[in-house]
Amino acid sequence: MTVVNRRITLAARPIGYPRVSDFQIDYAPLPDPRAGEVVVRTVYLSIDPCLRGRMSHADAEAPPIPIGEVLPGRAVGRVTESRDPSLQVGDAVEGILGWQEYAVVASTALRKVDHAPAPISTALGVLGMPGLTAYFGLLEICEPRPGETVVVSGAAGAIGMIAGQIAKFRGCRVIGIAGSESKTAWLLHELGFAAAINYKPAWNFHDRLRELCPDGVDVYFDNVGGAVTDAVVSRINPGARIALCGQISQENLVEPELGPRWLGRLVTRQAKLQGFLTTSYTEHFSEGFERLASWLEQGELHYREDVAQGIEATPQAFIGVMRGENQGKQLVQLSPS
Amino acid sequence: MTVVNRRITLAARPIGYPRVSDFQIDYAPLPDPRAGEVVVRTVYLSIDPCLRGRMSHADAEAPPIPIGEVLPGRAVGRVTESRDPSLQVGDAVEGILGWQEYAVVASTALRKVDHAPAPISTALGVLGMPGLTAYFGLLEICEPRPGETVVVSGAAGAIGMIAGQIAKFRGCRVIGIAGSESKTAWLLHELGFAAAINYKPAWNFHDRLRELCPDGVDVYFDNVGGAVTDAVVSRINPGARIALCGQISQENLVEPELGPRWLGRLVTRQAKLQGFLTTSYTEHFSEGFERLASWLEQGELHYREDVAQGIEATPQAFIGVMRGENQGKQLVQLSPS
Repeated sequence: MTVVNRRITLAARPIGYPRVSDFQIDYAPLPDPRAGEVVVRTVYLSIDPCLRGRMSHADAEAPPIPIGEVLPGRAVGRVTESRDPSLQVGDAVEGILGWQEYAVVASTALRKVDHAPAPISTALGVLGMPGLTAYFGLLEICEPRPGETVVVSGAAGAIGMIAGQIAKFRGCRVIGIAGSESKTAWLLHELGFAAAINYKPAWNFHDRLRELCPDGVDVYFDNVGGAVTDAVVSRINPGARIALCGQISQENLVEPELGPRWLGRLVTRQAKLQGFLTTSYTEHFSEGFERLASWLEQGELHYREDVAQGIEATPQAFIGVMRGENQGKQLVQLSPS
Repeated sequence: MTVVNRRITLAARPIGYPRVSDFQIDYAPLPDPRAGEVVVRTVYLSIDPCLRGRMSHADAEAPPIPIGEVLPGRAVGRVTESRDPSLQVGDAVEGILGWQEYAVVASTALRKVDHAPAPISTALGVLGMPGLTAYFGLLEICEPRPGETVVVSGAAGAIGMIAGQIAKFRGCRVIGIAGSESKTAWLLHELGFAAAINYKPAWNFHDRLRELCPDGVDVYFDNVGGAVTDAVVSRINPGARIALCGQISQENLVEPELGPRWLGRLVTRQAKLQGFLTTSYTEHFSEGFERLASWLEQGELHYREDVAQGIEATPQAFIGVMRGENQGKQLVQLSPS
């Protein structure tokens, strides 16, 4: 039986915020797997903000996504046909399956998902790249110490919510910055952050930050950049550590934005600012997975998912994440779990 | 005999570039030293760019310099009267003597200068704070490795010239950025830098930087900030290390300057940017002094001094340093060595 595979391809390079018309749905026959390959039916697609860069240009790790090509997003799915002895039909796997309903992939490019009793969707969030990114970025770069003030921007997002909680486990006072009242309420009441600020009423953002960080900021885990980061940097303490995870406020600008120059403050505060990619920590992934799984099993680590339905919903889900409309890790469900 | 001490005090808080009228010369009787104090006759005053901040506002380590007070610059001089057994008349000492011809200081606030055969002026340069700043900033923060491309801004200044040479000793390809043709010629022909760029013809600065760093930039030692730093950051390699030593381009602005936001580049390049103050390395100063003195004795480490004459010349010498008019470490000689 020939399976018709529905796929989302890049139709045009977005200018500014992507539009639905920058994407196209197509239908392609699924090739047969060769030796060493498996067929995977996607269950959940991950909406990966890091794809935005490659829609327009090369990034650090890869060239631009070619026009007409399936978007190379991460996903979790189940093996429906196997030509590799290491994977059986029914196994749950995670990898870069792409924005499509089925993928034919080398088994070596897949990670077997066996975090039972956690749902397989967590392989794209807390027990996947976002969780590892939070874990290594916070602990390796920021080295938070008990009693320190830790600020997380994009704090209700897939990475930020984990980074903030790990800082809390380390005994820090955690302040989350997010873009809506419902997000900040969730950070406060569900995740137990010490404080949370909605940056969108910009008129009082600086004042709120000052009120909530009376002792300054020791650690800043930045997913956002732009004016939010300017404000946090104005509050850093001597010896502050800043992990640059993402700069989503800058990703969808048509013209590059100017901002105040504040490197002088890093000098006087002897502060460190470091960009990182999670792929640098590949050798330590198993340690990260173990710690995250253990916090999850003990009921200490919480997460939230925002699940759209059906492959047609994927472009809009991506656009929503660019605009910060998602509540937690954004997924698209393509088939029953 | 009462000695009349000529001193330079701060007359007004400079706005933008300091003017001569922001300073005042006065004459004050010299107090008698108390037990534990010595009288020092200044030989060389150091022009310390880091004083600019405190002329207008507090900095990381101290409050603003009060109006009417002697500028707290470093200097080297000779003891003319001693009420402390650890120092004898004729000893050369270095410390914050202030912009004045004589100082009465506690002996514990002074460093005895005994780097013979180096001239005592080096206690304010290569064998003083500028040398230590270059040594620790480059080696501790940038960790340069043989074969790497190292860019130094303010490369002909007191700190930059030492940082660049240490990078050369470490087997790096060193490119200096400076603000005149005579400075770049000196970097090339006297210090043996691999290349040197005059940033002032701004129209071709980016192109020159690209030509001279065909393999990108691994290490950047920044004394300058602003557009120079923007350009260097656009060329950084994965894993680049940036030491922020100073941001002199920003020190004399009337209105804060805006610049392009480039933190996203630090993410994709996994680059580190770190501000530092030399005072953090106090415990390791003796190691730094020993290495610097040894390079100097072996004739490997070169330096240049720009010596103005007489205390009246001090304000203009400071202004000249702010404008980058000095050729090497700026000093003012107040009495014979």
